[in-house]
Amino acid sequence: MFERVLKDPVHDEIVVDDAWIWSLVNTAAVQRLRRIRQLGTSYLTFHGAEHSRFSHSLGAYETMRRLLQHLQKRFGWPHSDRDRKLALAVALLHDVGHGPFSHTFEKVYAYHHEDWTRRILLEDEEIRRRLDEIDTDFAQDLVGVLEKRGKFPIIQQLISSQLDVDRMDYLLRDGLHTGVSYGSFELARILRSIVISDGQVAISENAIHTVEQYILARYFMYAQVYLHPVTIGSDVLVANILKRAREQQETAALYLPKALTAILHEDSRPLSVKEYLALDESTLTYAFHLWSGSKDEVLADLSKRFLYRRLLYPIVCSEPSLEIRAQLRTLIRANGYDPEYYFAGRTSGITAYIYHGEGISIATKKGDKVELSRLSKLVRELSTSEEFCLFLPREIFLENGETAERIRRLLQVSVYPS
Amino acid sequence: MFERVLKDPVHDEIVVDDAWIWSLVNTAAVQRLRRIRQLGTSYLTFHGAEHSRFSHSLGAYETMRRLLQHLQKRFGWPHSDRDRKLALAVALLHDVGHGPFSHTFEKVYAYHHEDWTRRILLEDEEIRRRLDEIDTDFAQDLVGVLEKRGKFPIIQQLISSQLDVDRMDYLLRDGLHTGVSYGSFELARILRSIVISDGQVAISENAIHTVEQYILARYFMYAQVYLHPVTIGSDVLVANILKRAREQQETAALYLPKALTAILHEDSRPLSVKEYLALDESTLTYAFHLWSGSKDEVLADLSKRFLYRRLLYPIVCSEPSLEIRAQLRTLIRANGYDPEYYFAGRTSGITAYIYHGEGISIATKKGDKVELSRLSKLVRELSTSEEFCLFLPREIFLENGETAERIRRLLQVSVYPS
Amino acid sequence: MFERVLKDPVHDEIVVDDAWIWSLVNTAAVQRLRRIRQLGTSYLTFHGAEHSRFSHSLGAYETMRRLLQHLQKRFGWPHSDRDRKLALAVALLHDVGHGPFSHTFEKVYAYHHEDWTRRILLEDEEIRRRLDEIDTDFAQDLVGVLEKRGKFPIIQQLISSQLDVDRMDYLLRDGLHTGVSYGSFELARILRSIVISDGQVAISENAIHTVEQYILARYFMYAQVYLHPVTIGSDVLVANILKRAREQQETAALYLPKALTAILHEDSRPLSVKEYLALDESTLTYAFHLWSGSKDEVLADLSKRFLYRRLLYPIVCSEPSLEIRAQLRTLIRANGYDPEYYFAGRTSGITAYIYHGEGISIATKKGDKVELSRLSKLVRELSTSEEFCLFLPREIFLENGETAERIRRLLQVSVYPS
Amino acid sequence: MFERVLKDPVHDEIVVDDAWIWSLVNTAAVQRLRRIRQLGTSYLTFHGAEHSRFSHSLGAYETMRRLLQHLQKRFGWPHSDRDRKLALAVALLHDVGHGPFSHTFEKVYAYHHEDWTRRILLEDEEIRRRLDEIDTDFAQDLVGVLEKRGKFPIIQQLISSQLDVDRMDYLLRDGLHTGVSYGSFELARILRSIVISDGQVAISENAIHTVEQYILARYFMYAQVYLHPVTIGSDVLVANILKRAREQQETAALYLPKALTAILHEDSRPLSVKEYLALDESTLTYAFHLWSGSKDEVLADLSKRFLYRRLLYPIVCSEPSLEIRAQLRTLIRANGYDPEYYFAGRTSGITAYIYHGEGISIATKKGDKVELSRLSKLVRELSTSEEFCLFLPREIFLENGETAERIRRLLQVSVYPS
Repeated sequence: MFERVLKDPVHDEIVVDDAWIWSLVNTAAVQRLRRIRQLGTSYLTFHGAEHSRFSHSLGAYETMRRLLQHLQKRFGWPHSDRDRKLALAVALLHDVGHGPFSHTFEKVYAYHHEDWTRRILLEDEEIRRRLDEIDTDFAQDLVGVLEKRGKFPIIQQLISSQLDVDRMDYLLRDGLHTGVSYGSFELARILRSIVISDGQVAISENAIHTVEQYILARYFMYAQVYLHPVTIGSDVLVANILKRAREQQETAALYLPKALTAILHEDSRPLSVKEYLALDESTLTYAFHLWSGSKDEVLADLSKRFLYRRLLYPIVCSEPSLEIRAQLRTLIRANGYDPEYYFAGRTSGITAYIYHGEGISIATKKGDKVELSRLSKLVRELSTSEEFCLFLPREIFLENGETAERIRRLLQVSVYPS
Repeated sequence: MFERVLKDPVHDEIVVDDAWIWSLVNTAAVQRLRRIRQLGTSYLTFHGAEHSRFSHSLGAYETMRRLLQHLQKRFGWPHSDRDRKLALAVALLHDVGHGPFSHTFEKVYAYHHEDWTRRILLEDEEIRRRLDEIDTDFAQDLVGVLEKRGKFPIIQQLISSQLDVDRMDYLLRDGLHTGVSYGSFELARILRSIVISDGQVAISENAIHTVEQYILARYFMYAQVYLHPVTIGSDVLVANILKRAREQQETAALYLPKALTAILHEDSRPLSVKEYLALDESTLTYAFHLWSGSKDEVLADLSKRFLYRRLLYPIVCSEPSLEIRAQLRTLIRANGYDPEYYFAGRTSGITAYIYHGEGISIATKKGDKVELSRLSKLVRELSTSEEFCLFLPREIFLENGETAERIRRLLQVSVYPS
Repeated sequence: MFERVLKDPVHDEIVVDDAWIWSLVNTAAVQRLRRIRQLGTSYLTFHGAEHSRFSHSLGAYETMRRLLQHLQKRFGWPHSDRDRKLALAVALLHDVGHGPFSHTFEKVYAYHHEDWTRRILLEDEEIRRRLDEIDTDFAQDLVGVLEKRGKFPIIQQLISSQLDVDRMDYLLRDGLHTGVSYGSFELARILRSIVISDGQVAISENAIHTVEQYILARYFMYAQVYLHPVTIGSDVLVANILKRAREQQETAALYLPKALTAILHEDSRPLSVKEYLALDESTLTYAFHLWSGSKDEVLADLSKRFLYRRLLYPIVCSEPSLEIRAQLRTLIRANGYDPEYYFAGRTSGITAYIYHGEGISIATKKGDKVELSRLSKLVRELSTSEEFCLFLPREIFLENGETAERIRRLLQVSVYPS
Repeated sequence: MFERVLKDPVHDEIVVDDAWIWSLVNTAAVQRLRRIRQLGTSYLTFHGAEHSRFSHSLGAYETMRRLLQHLQKRFGWPHSDRDRKLALAVALLHDVGHGPFSHTFEKVYAYHHEDWTRRILLEDEEIRRRLDEIDTDFAQDLVGVLEKRGKFPIIQQLISSQLDVDRMDYLLRDGLHTGVSYGSFELARILRSIVISDGQVAISENAIHTVEQYILARYFMYAQVYLHPVTIGSDVLVANILKRAREQQETAALYLPKALTAILHEDSRPLSVKEYLALDESTLTYAFHLWSGSKDEVLADLSKRFLYRRLLYPIVCSEPSLEIRAQLRTLIRANGYDPEYYFAGRTSGITAYIYHGEGISIATKKGDKVELSRLSKLVRELSTSEEFCLFLPREIFLENGETAERIRRLLQVSVYPS
């Protein structure tokens, strides 16, 4: 009997009892996820957030495995071993297309990690060989689930909905590593309360407060961790490094990995899957090292700021008018910083729960199904909230009292960086 | 009042209430530790072991801070703010000289992370400027503590002895991240039981079982985590990559970071501190990426094995005779592998407690001080144990039944890799 | 230096570093709290809820101690050792007047645990002697704080407000013992964010999400633990036992402890503090043992039901009309049960946060103070919710299908006890 | 499908998926265990140790349930549903005969909780009816397993050997509630490593360090919790109360529960099972309340000491000679205390592992079975250790300096109670 057991800080044990799944874990494409952090630049805010997408992928797999045990026992689902493998594989592979700091990349380049996930699943030789072992439609079905094509509605919901194994694992895992209790919820009870009826996933009404707890865990993790101003500022920094590097291609490209060069030249020939897979956070970090010695002073300075955590300073305030923004840009330029790279504003919004179209379905005691927010006032009122944040070099405050004072007056805030 | 509070998965909160310490945290040399994993290649065995030496350095600092609070309250020690700063800084900086996979590096090259720690503390401009803020002897005193020159016996013991803040933090931290309970012990009680008498650190006799628990935590972490055969095999792989790269300098050095080139050419001009600090795990990982495309097939293959976790297979057995080793080498060569890079034996020994010279001192109820192992039979009998392990390519087993059978017979083991 | 350290499952260590506090811990009145469960009958729903008010009292004390350390360091408060002792003592003693299942008692008899707390603090010889050691006003001041007379506004808020050490400890402690994660929140951060300004307690604005988490922890603990229908049903049972015993005084009083007899005869001479202190859950449980052998069948049956957990069955439904209630009573009587003791309805309401009059004050960045619900939409919308529940003997469902069917139809519910 | 899920602080969830097991949980005999603390008087040392034998019984059941899942999947054992039920029932019921402070009772009276377990299983009407539902031999087989008659060797080992579900649950549970980390070990891995071969239970060799960790957890729990001098002193107190009550029957028996009277008069007619089951810690505690008002001053004083935690003071020392003991008794008597009740010596010995006859069997890689201590030097050397402790009234030290000094000199210790 095949069995591999991996110790895990969240689930205690991750059990791989299917040799085929184990062969997927051991592909280069999955192992590469060890070199991509789960929370991008968050480790610059919460030093413990050093865990990788590899650990999370195993965790999502394990959550799915436990959920399938319950669904099998209770509802005789999945009906086939192929469906079971599809569900497990999609949990393991759902993040396989992520690149280094993907969310930031996506804002700068024409790049979508979902596209890369699809391409890897269909084109990577090693992965494809494994998937074809099941049958030749398997890879397409896997992609279909991730792209929500509707052929496997249950699996689709289990991996990507408002209540899925992806979110369940990352809330607990990100909470553990950042050291906060915000992401905690009753995992075992949630799993046990999931029902399948009429070919749809729903959750039993008597677990409604447990679902609320899970929704609130998302809310608190967004409010306190994922959208932390310092993290957003780190993302801004990475985005501006990439932007500058693209504009200064000749300088930046020196000695760069081919994959990175290709991605920087978005107009050049398309990147191959193989090249893409050579991209990870060590590649990008090494590029930052190189760029920190660049002749382009802006590129060099931004790179060093990232490597040595001299981040842009975040100021939470109400969104300034265009006129005030213009004045701020002038001030920043007057202090010797190009506002194009040293000044930014970001609005971040928390959406802990979206109910139009794809809400969580509650199976009531009366036998019907009702969307969660119609039963839970707490969830219903948990509407989107937004926060605006401005970023600029901390040194302006420290070195130039007059400028600092003017910025404070313009933004009507009292900020004293240290 | 200055205060920075960092959330931490081990200590809940890390409190920096001294602006000078905070300025040390924010040096490039300390921030670089974010890019060096605490447990080297262990993450290939325990996927959760992705935490960095930066997190551990903060943890060692926090443990020292709490310990000093106790010692101050109880024994009025440290007597001066300078001593307090010295103790805190040494906890924060004790690992600053570590490089990527340092322990492995040290086996291949004339390289000692302790030397680099000393050089960074004395020569790195930014660090040195901070240290000189206290006084011009401070940097030398810091080095002196780490090199056990005896001028600050108490601080020396608190950072580097059989019972020190370094070990206390890493046992708990490594346990948490690998997901095992082996490293747990009663931290608060240990800290509270530390006494200072006659200018020496000792531990109160009524905490003797708690000290035993701590010693056993070390034993179990060595037995189950630190010396795991898969981890040792990963280290062998890294060592062999580096060995091959040194021998194939011309090929290997293409496009390499200067620092790495310099370190590979150990006969070349000495590395500067600045160059050394540009070396981290992203640099080395990127080198592995490059080497994985090298024309040298051995270097390329070894690099890919590391990146995609196709590790050498460990066989725990009794140490074979020279004759049997020779036969094994012949077999391995016959299978197309150069035994110089694909075959190795390692003996690993657990030493949970060393009592000659530098044991833990117990302050007895009668008022004298006695070395721990004289009071604790459990610790006394916890003598060194050793295990031998052989490493070779897994494929030999999978592809060649006859060879596999001969290896098993030669080693008198029954091994069935999968 | 005086120091007693007690291991605690919630706070790791409880540190008593004041010999006078230790002398209070060791009074008979405080030790008696070991024999009164913190959560009354909840252990019949959550078997782990076996912890006592003694453990909670120590926990509230410890939370206060840590909070005072912070306030002292930050705001130089408390200004005097007397105030410090008052704050610590009030945390330790705030529950000293609780009797066995007090909340239930209070519903049946003219009994208020707050009255008994006051009487014990003022009249118990041993307690009073300790309090008088500080000064002769101390006992009155202690009572004054608990009765919110306003003389010590800060201490009053710290022990009894929407955000106090009492709630902080019990949420964490009750969560731990019941085995749920609902009560978790960031204790250390809350404590660190408490500020004193203008002689009032407030909480720093940047901890607003942490306060939300704490308010939600209360909400979830009420929804999932404190107001669990099975627990409410257990309380109904205890109340009905006491009611019956009062009505059947002659039978019930046989061999009863004097204190219990006196309390049952509410018209008789008033109970002395000494007699009251002899009352604990062992006294009451022993009475249930005796009554389970009573000649009065109702008293005997109800007592056995409690002792052996054959509880009334809870049916969550909308509150029935008087007419339907009357029909239900008739049905129950027809099945051989006196509805006076075997039938009850209870409305339970969750109020996670009350903001009129005594809300949580947020110290904003702008320097003013604003009531929490004006800044937090989440808290504002967390209005009171109510649930109605009916209780009756489970056997009616199991033994009489026709009656069961009629009850279901009357209540328009589908209930299948097992 | 039948399923009851109970939240548990140790195992997260306790799953009862067999209606028959649930019917056993709900018997009066099992519910009574809620009124008997798992650790006797330990809560007077570790205030958190308030959990009951009921919680532990559920935990032992759950550990068995998980273990059976593994054994079923791996070894197809148990072969029949009857064996499965036998294993689950024995885990749930193994402690059913325990009375209040049983271990202490056993030292004073001719009383063995094992006898009561047997009698309850065979004679209690409600329990017997449930057991007979399986078949009429079931009750005898259950008793047979507990009495190690050898008919069901595997089940016997799983419930009562050096590595059984009883110990596994209580180490974790007692650790959690006392708040210490000493009892932690890798439960999931131990369970997964248990093998059945040749009809015997053994543990796989590669889990040998995990077994060591478990043995050490026992050692530390004995050393730090179970044999804590303050707990032993509390037991001495209970024993002396019972001894005095027996000797002063006429006084003591006033108003006493029949069961207690009967047990005190050991020469009287034998106690029935029904009477025995009415005995729990509330009964005994209530007796202490009554006795605390007794005319017999010794009985009254000892009872108050227990109720209000004015325990005998423990002095750890080497065992004194008969002559010195005699002198101590004289001294104590001279201070107004009858040494028969206020003076005692106890030797407590830690035996973390017993290997003669019934050691833990390790299934080696070579295929044979070897007793643990032959493979583990750590376990082999963990020999029995003993500690002697003397108990006497603390007041003697506080009130009579001269006596205190003489005691110290006689015992050659330095004791300063406070």
